[in-house]
Amino acid sequence: MGGHCDIGIVGLAVMGQNLVLNMARKGFKVAVFNRTAQRTQDFMRERVKDEPIFPAYQVEEFLSLLSSPRRVMLMVKAGQPVDDFIQLFTPHLSPGDLIIDGGNSYYRDTDRRIKEAENKGLLYLGVGISGGEYGALHGPSIMPGGHEEGYFLVKDILEKAAAQVEDGPCCTYLGPGSAGHFVKMVHNGIEYAFMQSIAECYYILREVGKLPAPTIGKIFEEWNKSEDLNSYLVNITAQVLQYLDPDTSKPLVDLILDQAEQKGTGKWASQVALDLGIPTPVINQSVIARNLSSFKEERKKISTLFPYSPEEKSDISLPHLEKALFLSQLGAFSEGFHILKEASSEFSYNFNLPEVARVWKGGCILQSRLLGRIQEALRGEPDLLFVSPIFREKVKEYLPSLRQVCAQALEREIPVPALCASLSYLDSWKREWLPANLIQAQRDFFGAHTYRRIDREGVFHTIWQKEEKE
Amino acid sequence: MGGHCDIGIVGLAVMGQNLVLNMARKGFKVAVFNRTAQRTQDFMRERVKDEPIFPAYQVEEFLSLLSSPRRVMLMVKAGQPVDDFIQLFTPHLSPGDLIIDGGNSYYRDTDRRIKEAENKGLLYLGVGISGGEYGALHGPSIMPGGHEEGYFLVKDILEKAAAQVEDGPCCTYLGPGSAGHFVKMVHNGIEYAFMQSIAECYYILREVGKLPAPTIGKIFEEWNKSEDLNSYLVNITAQVLQYLDPDTSKPLVDLILDQAEQKGTGKWASQVALDLGIPTPVINQSVIARNLSSFKEERKKISTLFPYSPEEKSDISLPHLEKALFLSQLGAFSEGFHILKEASSEFSYNFNLPEVARVWKGGCILQSRLLGRIQEALRGEPDLLFVSPIFREKVKEYLPSLRQVCAQALEREIPVPALCASLSYLDSWKREWLPANLIQAQRDFFGAHTYRRIDREGVFHTIWQKEEKE
Repeated sequence: MGGHCDIGIVGLAVMGQNLVLNMARKGFKVAVFNRTAQRTQDFMRERVKDEPIFPAYQVEEFLSLLSSPRRVMLMVKAGQPVDDFIQLFTPHLSPGDLIIDGGNSYYRDTDRRIKEAENKGLLYLGVGISGGEYGALHGPSIMPGGHEEGYFLVKDILEKAAAQVEDGPCCTYLGPGSAGHFVKMVHNGIEYAFMQSIAECYYILREVGKLPAPTIGKIFEEWNKSEDLNSYLVNITAQVLQYLDPDTSKPLVDLILDQAEQKGTGKWASQVALDLGIPTPVINQSVIARNLSSFKEERKKISTLFPYSPEEKSDISLPHLEKALFLSQLGAFSEGFHILKEASSEFSYNFNLPEVARVWKGGCILQSRLLGRIQEALRGEPDLLFVSPIFREKVKEYLPSLRQVCAQALEREIPVPALCASLSYLDSWKREWLPANLIQAQRDFFGAHTYRRIDREGVFHTIWQKEEKE
Repeated sequence: MGGHCDIGIVGLAVMGQNLVLNMARKGFKVAVFNRTAQRTQDFMRERVKDEPIFPAYQVEEFLSLLSSPRRVMLMVKAGQPVDDFIQLFTPHLSPGDLIIDGGNSYYRDTDRRIKEAENKGLLYLGVGISGGEYGALHGPSIMPGGHEEGYFLVKDILEKAAAQVEDGPCCTYLGPGSAGHFVKMVHNGIEYAFMQSIAECYYILREVGKLPAPTIGKIFEEWNKSEDLNSYLVNITAQVLQYLDPDTSKPLVDLILDQAEQKGTGKWASQVALDLGIPTPVINQSVIARNLSSFKEERKKISTLFPYSPEEKSDISLPHLEKALFLSQLGAFSEGFHILKEASSEFSYNFNLPEVARVWKGGCILQSRLLGRIQEALRGEPDLLFVSPIFREKVKEYLPSLRQVCAQALEREIPVPALCASLSYLDSWKREWLPANLIQAQRDFFGAHTYRRIDREGVFHTIWQKEEKE
C-alpha cells in the first residue's frame, strides 16, 4: 500500500489549481481530486503541461496515490464543504495521516475539527493562505497552525511553495489549534483597514482635489516608491486607478459600482476583538464602511433629501495625505498585533509575533516594506506597535498631518471614518486620563455597578440621588 | 392543588427584590425563592412590611405556593445560573406552566431555552427589563418576547408593574422567540452610545473649556430642560457632575477611576450588527472606547512617551455642543432601529417599531422626550430614523454644529470617537457615491472577486495586470 504522491489537493477552483501547479513546479508529486470530474479533466487538459500532477476521480483512487502518512489538503469553500470532505475522507484514512484545511475557515470551526481529528488519531492543520490567485501560483504567504507533528510532514512542501523573502520562506508553524486561521483572520482585518484608508485618500483626492482617477493613480505610484508606503495594496491601487476600460476608454474604476462586498474574515476580526476587549476602531470602522456602502439604493434616495453642494477644488497637501495614510496603516497593524498578543495568551497560541510579521513580508495582500520595521519593532515587545522606539518619533512627527487631513475632510463633508478612527485611536492611547470616570459614575447611579477611586483602594457605591431611597 | 400566589420570583438580588416589592404593591401575591435562605430571610425582615409576599425555602414548597398555571420568573444572573434554575424547576412543572427569564440573557440562549421549554410543553418568555434598581421598584420598561400565550398569563402583572406613560404602560408583547431580549440588547447598545457621547461633551468642556465638574453639571442641567436633550441620562449626568464627595468635598466624579466597565450587552449589539451587515459605527465606537479606557496602565505609560501639552482655555459654543450631542443621540437611535428593522425580518420577530419606541418612553435608561418624536417618525417607516420628515430639517440645521465640534476637538487632540463616528455616519448616508468602487476593484485585482458596473448589468472580472497571466 501507499502511492508515490507527496500530497493530495482537493478542490480545483482557481486557488486550488494554482497551488497545485506551484507545488508541482517545485518538484513535488501532487494528486488532485475535485467534487466534479469535469473540472479535473479541464484542469489537466488546459493548465497541466509536464508537471508531476496525477488526477483521481474516486476517493479511494485518490488516496491510493498518496505516500504514507497521507497528506490531504482541502482547498474548498469555508464552512460546510470542509466538514463534508472531512467526512468523505476520514473513513479511508489511517492514524497518523494528515488533513490540511487551506481555506478561510472560522477559527472556532478549526478548533472543533482538530478535536474531531484527534479522536480518530488523525493529524490536522488549519492553514491560512494569502496572496490571491497570483500568490497561490507564484508563492503565497502561508500561515499554518495545528498539530506540530503534522507540520513536519508538509514543512518542506509548504515552505518551498511559499513566497521567499530575504530571511526565509513566508511560512512557519505559528502555533497549536486554530493559530494559523486566527492569524489569517487578523491579517484580513488589517487588510480591510488598509484598503478603506486608501479608499478614503482616493475620496479626498477625487472630491476635494477634483483629480481624475489616472492622476490619482500616479500619486499612489509615487507613494509606492517610498519607505513608508511601498506595499502590494498601494501598488495595485496605482494600477487600478490608471487602468482604462477597453470599451469606453474611461478609467474603469469610475464605472465600477460603489458597493463593497466581503467574505466575512474582517467581520470576524472585529467581533473577536470585541470579545477579547481589544480596541480595534480602524478595523471595525472599515468593516462598517463596507456595510454602509452596500446600501446603495438607500443612499441614492437619501442623497436627494440632503443635497450636497460640493465646494470648489481645494488644494490638498500630498505630503500630509501620505503621512495620514501611513499612520492609518500603522494604526491598523497596531490593532492587529494587539489582538494577536491578547489571543496568544487567551487561546494559548503562544505566538512569536516577529515571526508573524516575517511571514507577511512576502506573498500576501499585506506585504509591504513597512513589515520589516514592524518585525524589528515587535522584537522589543512594545505594549502597542506604534509605541515602539522604531515608530515613536515618526508618529509624533506625522500626527499633525493626520489631524489636518481629517479636519479638512470633515469640513468638506467627506466621510473618512477609518482615518478619523486612526486619529482618535492614537490620541486616546496617548492620554493618561479619559472621560470614562463619568461613565463609571453613571453606571453606579442607575445600576449600582460600583466604581473605583484614584485616591484610595477598594470598590465603592454611592447613593447619588436622595429620592433613590424608598 | 395549586396555591394562591399570582407569580413566583426566583433570585433576590437588588433587582429581584425591587421587582417583587413593585408587583406586591400593585396588589399581586408574590412567592419568593432564593438560592440561599439567608437572603430571603433578610429580605423579608428588612424590606417587606405588609405587602403580600410569601417566602419559600424549598423548590416544592415554592412551586406549591403558585396558582395554576404556575408563573415562575427568574431574576438571576445571565448565563449558566439561568440554565441551572430551569433545570432545577422543570421536573416539578406541568405542561402549560410558564418560565420567565427577566435577566440580560444573550438572545441566542433565549432561543435555545424556548425550544427546550417547548419540548417539555412549557411556555417561556424572555423579558428585557431596563430601569436599574430604581426602575425595578417604581416601574421599569419591560420588553417581553417569546410565547404569546405565555404573555397573556402575566400581561396584567407586567403591565401594572411597568412604568406608565401618557399612552399606556411601558410594556407590550414584542414578538416571538428572543424578541424581548433582542430589543433589550439593542436598547443597551444605544445606551452605550449615548453615554459615550455625553462623556465626550464632558471631555471637551473639561479639557478645552477648563470648566470644573459642577459647572459642567449645570450645563447638563440646562440641557435637560430642552426638547432635544431632556432625558434620564442627561439628568443623571447633571446630578453626578454636581455631587460632592462627603469626605473630601471635591466633585466625586473627579475622584473616580477612568476605566469603564461593561457587562456585554453593548458588545453583543455591536457584534450582531456586524453579522446582520447593519452599520452601527456610533454604538461600535462607544463599546471600543470603553475597552480602550480599561488599559489605564498602558495609557499612563504611553502618555509619558507622547507628552500632551494642553493649550489654554478656549471658548466653547454651548449651542454647538448641545446640537452635536443631540445628533449623536439621534444617530445612535437611527442605528439601533436599523438593527431592529433588519432583525425583524431576518429573525422573524415581526417588530412593531413605534411600539418599541413607546415602551422605551418611560422607566428605562433611554427614556427621553425625544422618544415621542421617534415613535411618531417610525410610524412613517423611514429608511433610517434621521431621514424621517420629523427630523430631516433639524439634521440639516444641526450638522454644521456637529462638524464644528468635531473639528475643534480633533484640533485640540481630544479624542471624540463617538461624535466623529456620528458625523461620518450621517455624512456617509447622504452620499450617493462612496469610494467603495475602488475597494471592489482592488478585490477583483487580487482575488478575482468580480465587480458590478454602473453603466451595464452583469458581473465582471478584469485582468488588471499584464504579468498576472502565466
